[in-house]
Amino acid sequence: MGSLHVENLAGNNISKGVENPLDPEEFRRQGHMMIDFLADYYRDVEKYPVRSQVEPGYLRKELPDSAPYNPESIETILEDVHKQIIPGLTHWQSPNYFAYFPSSGSVAGFLGEMLSTGFNVVGFNWMSSPAATELESIVMDWLGKMLQLPKSFLFSGNGGGVLQGTTCEAILCTLTAARDRMLNKIGRENICKLVVYGTDQTHCALQKAAQIAGIHPKNFRAVPTTKSNNYGLSPDALRSTILADIEAGLVPLFLCATVGTTSSTAVDPIGPLCEVANDYSIWVHVDAAYAGSACICPEFRHFIDGVENADSFSLNAHKWFFTTLDCCCLWVKEPSALIKALSTNPEYLKNKATESQQVVDYKDWQIALSRRFRSMKLWLVLRSYGVANLRKFLRSHVKMAKNFEGFVNLDKRFEIVVPTTFAMVCFRLLPPAASPLIKTNGYQNGNGVYHKDETRANELNRRLLESINASGSAYMTHSVVGGVYMIRFAVGASLSEDRHVILAWKVVQEHADAILATF
Amino acid sequence: MGSLHVENLAGNNISKGVENPLDPEEFRRQGHMMIDFLADYYRDVEKYPVRSQVEPGYLRKELPDSAPYNPESIETILEDVHKQIIPGLTHWQSPNYFAYFPSSGSVAGFLGEMLSTGFNVVGFNWMSSPAATELESIVMDWLGKMLQLPKSFLFSGNGGGVLQGTTCEAILCTLTAARDRMLNKIGRENICKLVVYGTDQTHCALQKAAQIAGIHPKNFRAVPTTKSNNYGLSPDALRSTILADIEAGLVPLFLCATVGTTSSTAVDPIGPLCEVANDYSIWVHVDAAYAGSACICPEFRHFIDGVENADSFSLNAHKWFFTTLDCCCLWVKEPSALIKALSTNPEYLKNKATESQQVVDYKDWQIALSRRFRSMKLWLVLRSYGVANLRKFLRSHVKMAKNFEGFVNLDKRFEIVVPTTFAMVCFRLLPPAASPLIKTNGYQNGNGVYHKDETRANELNRRLLESINASGSAYMTHSVVGGVYMIRFAVGASLSEDRHVILAWKVVQEHADAILATF
Repeated sequence: MGSLHVENLAGNNISKGVENPLDPEEFRRQGHMMIDFLADYYRDVEKYPVRSQVEPGYLRKELPDSAPYNPESIETILEDVHKQIIPGLTHWQSPNYFAYFPSSGSVAGFLGEMLSTGFNVVGFNWMSSPAATELESIVMDWLGKMLQLPKSFLFSGNGGGVLQGTTCEAILCTLTAARDRMLNKIGRENICKLVVYGTDQTHCALQKAAQIAGIHPKNFRAVPTTKSNNYGLSPDALRSTILADIEAGLVPLFLCATVGTTSSTAVDPIGPLCEVANDYSIWVHVDAAYAGSACICPEFRHFIDGVENADSFSLNAHKWFFTTLDCCCLWVKEPSALIKALSTNPEYLKNKATESQQVVDYKDWQIALSRRFRSMKLWLVLRSYGVANLRKFLRSHVKMAKNFEGFVNLDKRFEIVVPTTFAMVCFRLLPPAASPLIKTNGYQNGNGVYHKDETRANELNRRLLESINASGSAYMTHSVVGGVYMIRFAVGASLSEDRHVILAWKVVQEHADAILATF
Repeated sequence: MGSLHVENLAGNNISKGVENPLDPEEFRRQGHMMIDFLADYYRDVEKYPVRSQVEPGYLRKELPDSAPYNPESIETILEDVHKQIIPGLTHWQSPNYFAYFPSSGSVAGFLGEMLSTGFNVVGFNWMSSPAATELESIVMDWLGKMLQLPKSFLFSGNGGGVLQGTTCEAILCTLTAARDRMLNKIGRENICKLVVYGTDQTHCALQKAAQIAGIHPKNFRAVPTTKSNNYGLSPDALRSTILADIEAGLVPLFLCATVGTTSSTAVDPIGPLCEVANDYSIWVHVDAAYAGSACICPEFRHFIDGVENADSFSLNAHKWFFTTLDCCCLWVKEPSALIKALSTNPEYLKNKATESQQVVDYKDWQIALSRRFRSMKLWLVLRSYGVANLRKFLRSHVKMAKNFEGFVNLDKRFEIVVPTTFAMVCFRLLPPAASPLIKTNGYQNGNGVYHKDETRANELNRRLLESINASGSAYMTHSVVGGVYMIRFAVGASLSEDRHVILAWKVVQEHADAILATF
């Protein structure tokens, strides 16, 4: 992989490029070499074990104790990337990668990152590089329109969008804005009374953001969900939790509702939840990190119906929207709430444009001051593929997941644990009905197969998953929902095609055969 | 710029690459095109006005209202980058860029970012891609050794390093760790008593981090500095501020000491400040965002003497260490304090490696869960240049700044406002002694030139700076320290050579001539 290009040039020009670290011709020479290295990597990536096979500490054994005193050539370094780094990678770009959620790379996303890195501007405010700020505002309006977000989330409607690194940051920023808006009303000394709401399925980003923002840990509510609601938050459960908190003298502050939870892609009912939250002036953030992308397809848009009554909305374009890590899209209705909580105005950044109040200074919409030119990659993705192809790509993943679900349903030894809504299938192997005792004490699943208890089923699937992943042929991960350990099969790696899904199912079946033979 | 490559290929292959968004051969074709585009950009960058000349709202007039439905070719997009984006860029990579602090790009930094983006792994924990975690721990030890950090900051000494995006994040993480360590002792309800210390020269990142972490705004101390201390924090002033807070029933928590302030590269005396802070169990963070890099040269290392008594230390490799934005290096003595404050442990991330406690899971050392493979670019920078060349590059910038300082000193119309310590010169033009009145009421500067009052001098320099920057020939920015408006001339753009510094000084003199003629 890549060795051809590396070997051809090895040993030459070792001292070049050291006169000036950004010499244009040296940039050209090494840049072309790197493009070929990565193109070869993509061509060959499915040959590698998807999940890295290394043991903890493998790399320290191979690398020297300290940085070299003298320069080393790019040829030597690329050889080491091949020999030392690639074995330690889990190949998120492999077509056989179905773990966690996708990290969907694309040519356009990569090229946008190259432009961003190449210009290397530090776009803290408009003045520091006007194009970076203006392009971001424009593409956030573009994407907002693709999602049919209400105008109140767009700049044209006095809201606006901003690119954050991750959903964790987006939640922390909106939570801080909500917190300060509330504390300015009720007094800072009441910070320990503020309550944050999510469910037992909400991403851990919410809990972390609450911790960082100084919310009292005992005031974090993970409202339980149930199978009967497909693990979505029940508006009634939310209301009764809120009422109990008010009764206890606490102050409801913030709700994070999820469209596509990490464990099972469950959807909290946005509209009804906003109605409850609005009764108590609670800031509602809609976390559509994974599934938000799908809402550019009309047939999925209904999952965010009601978003017009939320305060903020985010999705990760780096998950399932072909925009390499990191690129979290956040829209807010009330930018001034963010700005009040996050702005700073040091002398060394004062400038006429800011004073004119005609520009956006994004440093006041996020945690950090410095910021990369992330909109470049989103712009390239939107233009290179267009709405038509982006929908086509997403639908092809949904269809591949449906196919996989079909394979699972055809094999009576398995079951689908939760309905497949987007492009992730949650399934498990059922333990064989081995003895009369089990038949007696167990219960029957939908396929007519008996199994004794969840503990035994969970252990079986844990072993199955480890066996699949250890083979390197495909990579899936797990979750536990409602006590059930299940295997998550998330389609979305850009290189995945039907044949990879068919192969992955064959791998699952083969490993199930082997496991069942000894279970 | 770049037009040759674009035009040659324009109009071809528009529909290519749409079948699969990560098609390896399409990646190769477009990737090579982009390398040439950027190499040409670097070759030609000094021809552009350094500071963008556009007016607010310029881009919305040029771009459509919504994203295209059909795909557009990379050739069309690159033409638009040239026509629509480049005019709106402030060229941080221009050799005539001397504003803010540098954002020093390099071939190695760019290539490292390409590898990171290309692999596109989401390295939240060891398991998700072991190489990303292990390489980061190793290079942070390498760089820690280059800086002669005490072993207690390295993994081998039970401390450790982590790559954050920016100093803002590094400070927020350490402040949160310090806060929770303290609140676990004194009770969460005492959060409103915690006090954070910096100076009137500390970067606004500290204030912002304190806001986000829920520190009461009235408990943020910006201790005043003076010219007599070169705008560094006086240990006596710190102690008396702390004592007053204790007297008032407050709880001293966190000190951010700076090595190389943004306004004037002032240095807080780390050793003596740690002695004071240690008396009150205050967490000391050393923010060496800009000047930390220079400490790999033995002649600068003394500026961080005493760091062995601090709790954490950070520098921005993306500022003056050739590692493109973003790459903030943070070392801590007590990783467990970070982990206690920032860890989460959801089911879907549970894995054997984490349970074995043999690995680092960096998600628990930072705000976000997702993280890019940033160590790749730092590794490439360290290896491609080696310690020898990195020192050479930094020293060449220091020497260029010294040369510029020499030019200023030779022209009696100007003065150096604060001593030049690293590679930034703070200077100003003195108002002419125009009338006997001014001679009478004014005072004499070191060069024997009279000026009446600071207000008049400040206005003169404001006009001079705007005149220089509007010309596009060079870009500098300002600050105000001790009431004096001064022009900051920060050397560090990778392409800058002696001739650019000489040219910049000529530009300053010419604009001073013109301004003085009408003042």
